[in-house]
Amino acid sequence: MAAPCFEITARDPGSRARAGVLTTAHGTVRTPAFVPLATKAVVKGIEAREVEALGFDMVLGNTFHLWLEPGHELIAGFGGLHEFMGWDRPIITDSGGFQVFSMGHGTVADEVKGRSPYGSQRDGGVHDITEEGVTFKNPRNGDTVFMGPETSMEVQAGLSSDIALVFDECTPFHVDRDYTARSTERTHRWLDRCLAWHAEHGPREQLVYGIVQGGVYEDLRSEAAAAVLSRDPDGIAIGGSLGAEKAQMYEVVGWATAQLEGAAETKPRHLLGIGEVDDLIRGVELGIDTFDCVTPTRLGRHGVALIPEPAKRFRVDLTAAKYKASTEPIEDGCPCPACSHGHSRGYLRYLAKNRELTGLRLLTLHNLVYLARLMRDLRDAIAAGTLAETAQALRGGAPPSQDPVEVAVPAR
Amino acid sequence: MAAPCFEITARDPGSRARAGVLTTAHGTVRTPAFVPLATKAVVKGIEAREVEALGFDMVLGNTFHLWLEPGHELIAGFGGLHEFMGWDRPIITDSGGFQVFSMGHGTVADEVKGRSPYGSQRDGGVHDITEEGVTFKNPRNGDTVFMGPETSMEVQAGLSSDIALVFDECTPFHVDRDYTARSTERTHRWLDRCLAWHAEHGPREQLVYGIVQGGVYEDLRSEAAAAVLSRDPDGIAIGGSLGAEKAQMYEVVGWATAQLEGAAETKPRHLLGIGEVDDLIRGVELGIDTFDCVTPTRLGRHGVALIPEPAKRFRVDLTAAKYKASTEPIEDGCPCPACSHGHSRGYLRYLAKNRELTGLRLLTLHNLVYLARLMRDLRDAIAAGTLAETAQALRGGAPPSQDPVEVAVPAR
Repeated sequence: MAAPCFEITARDPGSRARAGVLTTAHGTVRTPAFVPLATKAVVKGIEAREVEALGFDMVLGNTFHLWLEPGHELIAGFGGLHEFMGWDRPIITDSGGFQVFSMGHGTVADEVKGRSPYGSQRDGGVHDITEEGVTFKNPRNGDTVFMGPETSMEVQAGLSSDIALVFDECTPFHVDRDYTARSTERTHRWLDRCLAWHAEHGPREQLVYGIVQGGVYEDLRSEAAAAVLSRDPDGIAIGGSLGAEKAQMYEVVGWATAQLEGAAETKPRHLLGIGEVDDLIRGVELGIDTFDCVTPTRLGRHGVALIPEPAKRFRVDLTAAKYKASTEPIEDGCPCPACSHGHSRGYLRYLAKNRELTGLRLLTLHNLVYLARLMRDLRDAIAAGTLAETAQALRGGAPPSQDPVEVAVPAR
Repeated sequence: MAAPCFEITARDPGSRARAGVLTTAHGTVRTPAFVPLATKAVVKGIEAREVEALGFDMVLGNTFHLWLEPGHELIAGFGGLHEFMGWDRPIITDSGGFQVFSMGHGTVADEVKGRSPYGSQRDGGVHDITEEGVTFKNPRNGDTVFMGPETSMEVQAGLSSDIALVFDECTPFHVDRDYTARSTERTHRWLDRCLAWHAEHGPREQLVYGIVQGGVYEDLRSEAAAAVLSRDPDGIAIGGSLGAEKAQMYEVVGWATAQLEGAAETKPRHLLGIGEVDDLIRGVELGIDTFDCVTPTRLGRHGVALIPEPAKRFRVDLTAAKYKASTEPIEDGCPCPACSHGHSRGYLRYLAKNRELTGLRLLTLHNLVYLARLMRDLRDAIAAGTLAETAQALRGGAPPSQDPVEVAVPAR
């Protein structure tokens, strides 16, 4: 393990940003990159070959969901997740920890009201968290099931993903420093168990990323980054609570990446669950190489499209009544099917309001194309030494470049 | 009205089948043809340009749904339904009568138990049926609304469809002869009102089809066909209850088309709501030119794919457990994206069971491609004078031809 899998090809002189090439068993990922979610072995609404044609090199599969159904043994019988879903490019799988712990963390309201992070047991919730792992009720059938570090790695081995993430506790917002410190230490012990399992049983060509937790506490984040680095994983992911607002999130990510400079700089860095337009731009400046997030695809399925308007959080909610008769496209010049095929905001609104599959697909395509354009612009700018200007322009509302070369939906 | 819009280009010597070209304001339809449903201004899961690429010349829009939302005035503001949905080929619109009356006809169980066809008023049901039209509760908001022949034609005029269907009562199965006779007579009076409204207000280039009702009674069907023909509409649709089983359906359709031979043969004939594989083959032999049906697309969204296996009703239900680990495609050699992109039955099953948009779309595409292939084979066979052999082979389980020329999903 820890043979170099990442080559830095260009650096931004004014920030920690770097462009590079991440090499996996199923090919390379041009970074910085956004990684669309293929939660249940599919990017919702899109075929695998379309995802590739849109300009994405890697997708993220969800260990928890695929473990419960159809099961990693069944997928292994197909030859692995790549063969099952018809995607022969890189796949990263999360550890399942986020989903397992989400069931126990209760609602945001519980957290805000200061209840114990595990005190609010909902249906399908967590029964027990021990050093060994987590016991919980399978939300699909009510069975009691257990997931620990070894379970997660075994499932990811069965999926044959190119990059496995170690099993960690994703601490929620508003847990206190003491809980976070104890949780982070356990996450490091779980990291050791994951690496030990993988060394003995894991696919040799599978890369393993450690995960930096530590909540919103600078010393814990720094210690966690150092602790994860000391185990020499193939790459580093940054997870857990990143704070209550964007300024704090950027600060927390910066604490982590600051610890990953220098000798550790060739470890590829993944930021878990972050994918808003301004966050991607700032994350790149902070030295993140890859990002995954449900937001762009989920927004699309809820009728919300990405647009180059920072004052509107880079979003337009097409379900608003004011778009009912709009003959405008989502974004002039956008090469996505929704825009380039002449579909109006009014038509897309009607489809989205009626939950028509075609509308949800078109908005998903638009949002993914937007992020493909954005990330390519950021990569190109780092290579050209113009990231500062490009980031400022994109942040200020300049549309990402419109070159459709990489965003053609393929023929049969 | 009633300038010829249909040219017969070939006839089958052994049946009433004919191949032809139906000419509308938005181009031609090669017949016999299946007409996919674009109920709410979209073929569910597919873009308009994809529908065309799959080999379909015409789609059917739903007057009732589009009237309630977004409204024909709004669609007229976009320039009509073609512009609204981005489809510049022919559109036929139903009259809305089927939906209006469906609300009042109660459940099939009510019918089977012999209850009055309008006795079982459900929520959103019909309040009143008079000579003037139908008053009912808008299922979207509870408002009391009225639709009569003129309403239907006005809505269809606003939609600017190429072919409008007149407002009729679609009689359900198991209403008695007396009810059917009285209903059919009223449908003819409504036909006159539709044609009168259209002559004064309708778009000049819009064709109008009359509808032959008459239930399962030979004399009523024959009288209805003669009555509709006597009004000289541009084309003839066959609607209403066609019987309890396929043999009766074919008999009923045959009674109607028998009356449409001879001097009336140049009227194009549409069979409403029929689209199973064997029914399409038999319908063509009975002299039907165009068909619409929700079945192929709805089946796809429920995990059922069309296959050339008559013993299985030309269907495979991929949600069955036995396909869980199947690495086979739906159909070897099928040029649709689901089959030609190598997606397994096991993967498609998983997607369908999880209601994944991509799976529902892929199965919809497969089923439409199947029907596109089937109808092209039937057209080609009529032209070649080989319909008897072709129909026998297709009915017996021969796969439709696999030439992918017409079924390419286009690039951007």
